Parts: sequence; structure tokens; C-alpha cells
Amino acid sequence: MQRFKLAARNEKSKNTVVAIPASGQTLYIGEGYCTVIAGPCAVESRDSFVKTALLLKEMGAHILRGGLFKPRTSPYSFKGLGREGLAIMAEARELTGLPLVSEIMDVRDLDYMYEQVDILQVGSRNMQNFTLLEELGRLEKPVLLKRGLSATIEEWLLAAEYILSNGNPRVILCERGIRTFEILTRNTVDIGAVPLLKQLSHLPIIVDPSHATGKWKMVIPVAKAAIAAGADGVMVEVHPDPDQALSDGKQSLTPQNFRILYEQIKKIADLDGKILV
Amino acid sequence: MQRFKLAARNEKSKNTVVAIPASGQTLYIGEGYCTVIAGPCAVESRDSFVKTALLLKEMGAHILRGGLFKPRTSPYSFKGLGREGLAIMAEARELTGLPLVSEIMDVRDLDYMYEQVDILQVGSRNMQNFTLLEELGRLEKPVLLKRGLSATIEEWLLAAEYILSNGNPRVILCERGIRTFEILTRNTVDIGAVPLLKQLSHLPIIVDPSHATGKWKMVIPVAKAAIAAGADGVMVEVHPDPDQALSDGKQSLTPQNFRILYEQIKKIADLDGKILV
Amino acid sequence: MQRFKLAARNEKSKNTVVAIPASGQTLYIGEGYCTVIAGPCAVESRDSFVKTALLLKEMGAHILRGGLFKPRTSPYSFKGLGREGLAIMAEARELTGLPLVSEIMDVRDLDYMYEQVDILQVGSRNMQNFTLLEELGRLEKPVLLKRGLSATIEEWLLAAEYILSNGNPRVILCERGIRTFEILTRNTVDIGAVPLLKQLSHLPIIVDPSHATGKWKMVIPVAKAAIAAGADGVMVEVHPDPDQALSDGKQSLTPQNFRILYEQIKKIADLDGKILV
Amino acid sequence: MQRFKLAARNEKSKNTVVAIPASGQTLYIGEGYCTVIAGPCAVESRDSFVKTALLLKEMGAHILRGGLFKPRTSPYSFKGLGREGLAIMAEARELTGLPLVSEIMDVRDLDYMYEQVDILQVGSRNMQNFTLLEELGRLEKPVLLKRGLSATIEEWLLAAEYILSNGNPRVILCERGIRTFEILTRNTVDIGAVPLLKQLSHLPIIVDPSHATGKWKMVIPVAKAAIAAGADGVMVEVHPDPDQALSDGKQSLTPQNFRILYEQIKKIADLDGKILV
Repeated sequence: MQRFKLAARNEKSKNTVVAIPASGQTLYIGEGYCTVIAGPCAVESRDSFVKTALLLKEMGAHILRGGLFKPRTSPYSFKGLGREGLAIMAEARELTGLPLVSEIMDVRDLDYMYEQVDILQVGSRNMQNFTLLEELGRLEKPVLLKRGLSATIEEWLLAAEYILSNGNPRVILCERGIRTFEILTRNTVDIGAVPLLKQLSHLPIIVDPSHATGKWKMVIPVAKAAIAAGADGVMVEVHPDPDQALSDGKQSLTPQNFRILYEQIKKIADLDGKILV
Repeated sequence: MQRFKLAARNEKSKNTVVAIPASGQTLYIGEGYCTVIAGPCAVESRDSFVKTALLLKEMGAHILRGGLFKPRTSPYSFKGLGREGLAIMAEARELTGLPLVSEIMDVRDLDYMYEQVDILQVGSRNMQNFTLLEELGRLEKPVLLKRGLSATIEEWLLAAEYILSNGNPRVILCERGIRTFEILTRNTVDIGAVPLLKQLSHLPIIVDPSHATGKWKMVIPVAKAAIAAGADGVMVEVHPDPDQALSDGKQSLTPQNFRILYEQIKKIADLDGKILV
Repeated sequence: MQRFKLAARNEKSKNTVVAIPASGQTLYIGEGYCTVIAGPCAVESRDSFVKTALLLKEMGAHILRGGLFKPRTSPYSFKGLGREGLAIMAEARELTGLPLVSEIMDVRDLDYMYEQVDILQVGSRNMQNFTLLEELGRLEKPVLLKRGLSATIEEWLLAAEYILSNGNPRVILCERGIRTFEILTRNTVDIGAVPLLKQLSHLPIIVDPSHATGKWKMVIPVAKAAIAAGADGVMVEVHPDPDQALSDGKQSLTPQNFRILYEQIKKIADLDGKILV
Repeated sequence: MQRFKLAARNEKSKNTVVAIPASGQTLYIGEGYCTVIAGPCAVESRDSFVKTALLLKEMGAHILRGGLFKPRTSPYSFKGLGREGLAIMAEARELTGLPLVSEIMDVRDLDYMYEQVDILQVGSRNMQNFTLLEELGRLEKPVLLKRGLSATIEEWLLAAEYILSNGNPRVILCERGIRTFEILTRNTVDIGAVPLLKQLSHLPIIVDPSHATGKWKMVIPVAKAAIAAGADGVMVEVHPDPDQALSDGKQSLTPQNFRILYEQIKKIADLDGKILV
């Protein structure tokens, strides 16, 4: 028996499509669309981020990602530019018209992130940070809810339920790989989660092949698999110079490889008549 | 440092393509081909198996699967028809011209299985049954090596190495899901294993979405994902009446759904110029 | 190469012993001591909690546990009495002289919890809630850091490092079971973590057999195993009437069984000359 | 609902105690006894094995272990002396009077192993090698059934059921660690399996802390934990010179450390009134 109610398929007559207000036009994530979210793992500098944003816009990306606060396993790793990075992201949004997605780790950051960030991301480590989920449930802002590293599908949908039951229906799920015994890859993409969620829930589901695999050479094939399995989009890391990235360089695509990814998933999305602009 | 040698990509200049002698023509599994293996989990009766075989042949399947000895977790479950079932499989092969793949569990069954079965399958539970692998390494028969339920990629390639190093280069890998904490699906398909194996090894890799998911509704999306990720084919369970199957009915496709699967993966294979007859 | 520094054994000449100021005397957790923390999963009512506290005091428990904010997987489950429950805990502390441990989930609760709670617990789901860890690192209060459900030993010690590197050396680790494929038990106790942590770190380590197993019949044997393996104590759930518990009743000991547990682990602690009052 | 029948607690009125015929006296494994099985991972040479056997006998070990056929992950690793090693083991048994336990991997080895080996061991990789289990079920010889690397408790008991239902009640279970995401240890000892099996089944259960941890420094604490949790014994690897061992040296105890282990677990066994000679 399912413990999730508002997230369950039977609760609504049709699939949720989340509207993302963007400059000039509104974007949609969900049924009938194939959304491509791209950007560097962390915002590192104004020049690098703006340059990447312009390239991504030109190559077709729909939404710009960038980390301000990086939840790093070690306290001694680069943790992001924080509030300073937000001004850089806002400038990139102004220049490109692309909506922004960025991770929120602390409810106290909400007041100044709320205005500038179009989609608030909840990271894997915070999937069961229930006080954060409840706060986001009281907003009118889309939330990208990443699956916890060892969260079952049911736990994930129950985390979504925390947001939904507080009044915010704008939840986008993001599969980003689960923890298994395999050590050659960073995580194991649970590709079956995509069709399973489509049966159990009406919420849109995208896949993040970058964090899931940890290896840029695997990103394109896994992104193709995600769209073929029915995902509503992908979120990928792109860095102008992956070797110099301050975090997650090994899993970042170069802009050239992003172009290849875009073309290849477009062909698969086309088979199902999905809109990829 | 890799401990597998003959299975490693650097050992050979090109990808292994395994030839499967079939009546009238030779089939190939590997680069450039998309192979569809189908059939019921277990051979249950002459009429049911022959009927299914004829249907599958008509719908485009390339190879016929059928279990003679089912490795059942409980000693009280249906264990297959054994040697008697082999005569049924042989008849179906005669009628359809489709080559046969069936699991071997005991080296003592080799003598009579060798003649009739075109591809000898090593099941997950026997992936590290090294005496069996060594025997198969001394044959000139293709071997379909399923990944163990909790085998790492390296352990899997080392199991292949047992066959290769004994003289038999005709190894086909088969991803069939790994064991994780997720309980809504039978296993978790490691879709990333497909591109990773393509980087590490020259051996062909196919995916079994039926055992991997345990739910027939997930079989088509996961099969599509497998081909999109670069797999050389799929192996699926098809039963004329899944509700009446003596084993694994819940994960078996009806012939009608098999037709849909075939058409859909063909479109994806076509994008990469792969031959699916 | 280890990424944790302050948590590493080589950084300090001796094992950390955390002092817990208690009314009348100071308690210690760490080398040479065997500490027993007990109490109900959640504070449910004044009468029930005070009654249990008095019983536990009489039977030898050293520290009283009780949940105010229960991080429940489903938003529809009982979530604890919150701030109201704290007054009940404070009364029980007054009556028994036992120090209190309770979970903190939100940094905004710190101001009023700080005075009344003697050990602030970080739950599994928040083990990588880095903003919470950083705040706790700035306090002069002992922190009980539970292992995340799928956290590696290294990740766990790096989480401790977040607290230590912010200035608070009073960290007590708590193994509470990890997530595996096994489904008959709630989690799998990683008993090997105890001796491994003793080699890698100077921090005290206790074991929570209640959450780890989810079955009260397993609590006593696993608690004995923990002490035999070298743990510095155990934390167990005790409820006057487990069948009526609002959460986790199946894993709660009756007071009678707590007495048996206490006697049995005392015998094992005695073998190693550990003080269990 | 349990699928195992003969292995289930409700099927028999009392716990199974397996008799091991030894020269001069009969040994017992099960309730009331604490059995210590020790020896090197593999039989490497006559001198080394006999010397170790004499030392172990003098230090109190009850049963001598030694591998003839080592199931090695890589085909290029040392695989054991095979049949030649059996003569060495038989000589050690003659000299010490200790019964022998050794792994059987291939039913075709049964004829000559049957006479000399007192307990036939089924290794983790073969826990679901059902044809092997069925053969062993037809013998009148004790079988030590190791848990598969990712076998659930239910699957393990069903594997035992294959032996029991074929007529052999002499099954001893052996927990040897399961595969999890943790990478600092070779496997994760499922200590909770001990009390859980005592509730579910009447079969004796021993623990192998050497394979389970992969680190000799963890062997003594985990062995103590096993006995404290209610295990009927332990099986440990001992090598006269672990640094020179051809396999698994890192997890082998020196004879001196074996003596410490023996003394320490004796104290814990004494608390429960168990006989350790």
C-alpha cells in the first residue's frame, strides 16, 4: 500500500507539467517536453560562468545550472562562492534569458535566493531534510528534488509529499544515481526508476547522468538512455575547461561534447514526438 | 590497474563479433548489430513453446531462449523439464530456424546439451562457478555470461577471462540487473555498465530487462534505454499467457507487447545504423 | 590517503573522552567507560516519559534519550511534541538527575534546545547537513553524530570533521545500522565499524541496536556484540508499553528486558575492565 | 510467510547439534558449544601446514581448515594445490587428531574428498550452485554452508533447504560478511544475522571474521562480537607467516594472535556457560 497520496498517480487526472517563467516566454517541464539543463558544477568566476552560459544558450540549453553552496563531503574542499556567486548567475540570466536552477542548503538563504533563482534544487544529502522541504512547500517556486543516495523510490516520493502537502505542487524529480557496491562508477543510475515513477506518480522526472556516473565519457550514452526510457529531460554538467574545474571536472562535458549530447538526445526525443525546442 | 587481460580493450584491435551458426545463415552478435533474443522463462510444454517460437520468428526475433533447468531459490519451486525440454527446444529450432540459447548449470549436462544448444548461458548464480567456466572455455561454442547479482564490473570481466583464457573467445556479456536496497523492482539495471564495458572491453554486451526489473511494464522502456546506451541487443521473456506461466510470469511480455518492443528498439537502433534485420 | 585530519588517530596522543556535565557528577563517554543511553523513541506524554525515566534511573541508565522532532519518512506520521516535549524532558532530568540527549533537526531550534539538552544528536538523515554541522561546531556542547544510512566510514569521519574543524571537539559517533539488500531487518549493523573506527580515530563510538535492527528480540544480542567489539556504550529504545508506542514500538525494549540487557553487557564490559557504574 | 520448511525453527523441537566424528572423540557444533575452526586460507606446502596444525592443536583449536581449490576471482591467481594438498591435510589430521574442513567446488571431486574431509564446505560463490547442494544433500557428511556475498537470510536458509530436503540434516551455517557500499573493509559482517537465525532456524551458526573483514586487526574484536551475539563458534584464518601467504595474508592471524583470540572468546563463551573444551 502506497503511503504517498498527493504524489500518487491516482490522485490527479493528468501528468504535472511545471511552468518555469522565463524572460519573454514560459518553459515547461513534463509530459511532451524534453528539457535540457546545463552548466558547471559550481559557479567559479564571472568570466567563466558568463562565457559558458552564452555558449549553452547558443547550443540550445533551456535552463542554466550553477552551484553557489557546494555540499562537499570534506570541510576542506572548495565550497562555492555563496551569495557572491548569485550575482554572477543573475547576470548570466540577464544576458541569456535562461532561467536558473541552484541548490539551497539552508532555509536562512531563502530570502535572497528566492528572487533570483527560478528553480530551487534540493540536493541528495538533503532529500530528507524535512524542515527544508516544509519551507519549500510553502513557496510558489518550482523545486527540483534530487533522489537521496540510498533513498528508495517510496522514500523519494514521500519527500516530494512533504513539499506537495504544504501547498506547492511544482515538484520535479531528479534521478542522480544511487549508491551500490560497484566502485568503477561514482554511483549507479537507476534507469528503471524512470518508467516506474511514470507508473506510480504524475510528477515530471529528469535524469542527471553527470553526478550519477562521475565519468564524462558515460554522460552521453546514459543521457540517451534516460530519454529513451521516458525521462522528461536531463541535467548535465558542462565546463569550458573540465581539467581546470574546482569540483567535479571528471564528469563535466566540454561545450563541444554538449553539442553532441544535445543532437543525439534530440533524435530520440523526436521518436516520441517530444518538444526540445 | 586492470586484472583482466584478454577481456580488456587494449588487447585486441577491434570489437569481438560472435558468430552464431544458424540454419541457412549465420547470425552475429556485436558491433553493428542489434540482436533480439526472446522466449519464455522456462520450457513448460511442447505446444506452448512451439507456438511461442513460431510467433517470435514471425515477429522478428533472432534467437530463441528457453530454460531447461531453472535455478530456483527454493527447492520446492518448478525446476524445469530438464532433458525432456531439450527435445522440445530442438523441435522449435527445426521448425523456425532460430538458434537456441539455454542455461547450463552442471558440467555433466554438457554432453547432450552441446549438440542442440547454440549458445550456452551461464546464469547469475553461477557467474563465479569457476569449474563450469573453465569447461566452457575449452569448447568452441558461444557463451552468454550473465552478470552475478552483486558482481562488480571487474569481477564480471574476470569471470569472462576464465572462459577466454581457456581458449574460447566467443563470450557475450549480459547485464541483468544488480542487487541494491531498492525493493519495488526485482533488481536494479546498471545501465551505465553498457558504456563502461564498451570502454573497458571488446566483448559484446546485451541487456536482459525482464529479469532486471521483474515487471513487464518496465521491460519496453528499459530495453529502449539499453539500445540507446549502446547495448548490442536485448534478451526478453515472452510468454503466450503470462498469467499462467510456471515461473516469472510477472515479467513476461505478451506476444503483442513483444511486437511493440521490437518496433521501438528498431527505431533507436536505426539512429545508430545498427542492423536489426 | 585519509582526508579527515582532526578526527584521525594520528592527530592526538590519546583517545577523546567526552565529559557530560550532569547534576551532582560528571559523566564520561569514551575509553574506560561503558555508557548506557536509554529512553523512548519519541516523547509522547508527561506521565509516560517521567515514569520511564525514573525506572531507567533506578535500573542504571546513564543518559536519557527522547525525541522531540521525529524525522519521519512520511509527512503524515506522528512527528513528535516539539518544543512542548522539551519541558517534559527537562522535568524528567530534574527528577532523575540524568543528562538528556535529543535530536536537533533545524538550526533555528538551537536557542531554546541549547540550555536544556546535554547532548545534541544529529540524526542519520542529517549526517551531511553541513550547515547544521557547522553550527554545532561553534558550540561547547557534546554532539552525538549518527552514521548516515549509506555513509561510508570515511564520509562519517569527514562529517565529524565539520564539527571538529569549527572548534568543537566533543563528538561522539553512533553506529545505527546501514542500508543493505537484506530486508528481514530494518538495517544492517556494521559491527566491524567499531574496531575499524578505534584504529582510524580517537573519537568515542557507541552503537544503537534498536534502530539498527528494528526488532526488539535482536537488541540484547547486538548490544552485547557491540560491547564485545569494543564500543564505548549503547543507546537503546525503552518504552513502558511498546505495543502502544507512537513510533518504533517494534524495536523498543520493555523495562524488564532493559534490565536484562544492562546486566548482560555489564558482564562483558567487566571482562575489559570498563566502568559501567 | 517463510518458504523454508525443514530449516525453520517450528519444524523441530530442539536445536540441531551436528556431530563431527574425530579420532578418539566426537566433536559437536551447536547449542551449548563454542567451536573454533582455524587454519590457513590455502594449503601451501606440507611443512607449513603441518607446523600450523600442530600449533593450532596445542592452542586449543577444534577443527582444522585448509583450502585445496581456491575459488579465485582472477584466473591468474594461485588456485590451490588441489588433490595433492589433500594428502597434506590428511597427514595433519593424522598427526593432530583434528577433523578437517575444506571447500568443495565441483561434484566430480566428491569421490576422493569424501573419505578424507570431515566437513565439506560450500563457499559463498557456490551458495546457489543447486546441483552441488543436491549432491551434498544425499551424503551423510556435515556441510558448512557459507552465506553468499549478497544472499538474503531467506535465500541462505533456502539453500540449506536444498541440502536438508535431500536427506542430510547436518548443515552448519557460516556468516562471512555481505557485500555493501563500504570499501574500507572487504565485506560487512551482518552480526544481526546471528540472533535472527537463532529465531528463525534450529541450525547452528558460526562466523568467519577473517573473510568478512579482510583485516587481521579486526578479527579478534569481531570474533568476540560473534560469540557475544550468540554464535556457535568462529572460523578464522591463521598463518605462521601472514606476510608470505599466497592468498589472504592480510586477514590472517599469527599463531600468537590466535592464542589471544582463543582466550578472549573463551571468557565470553564462559559467561553463557558454553563449552570451549
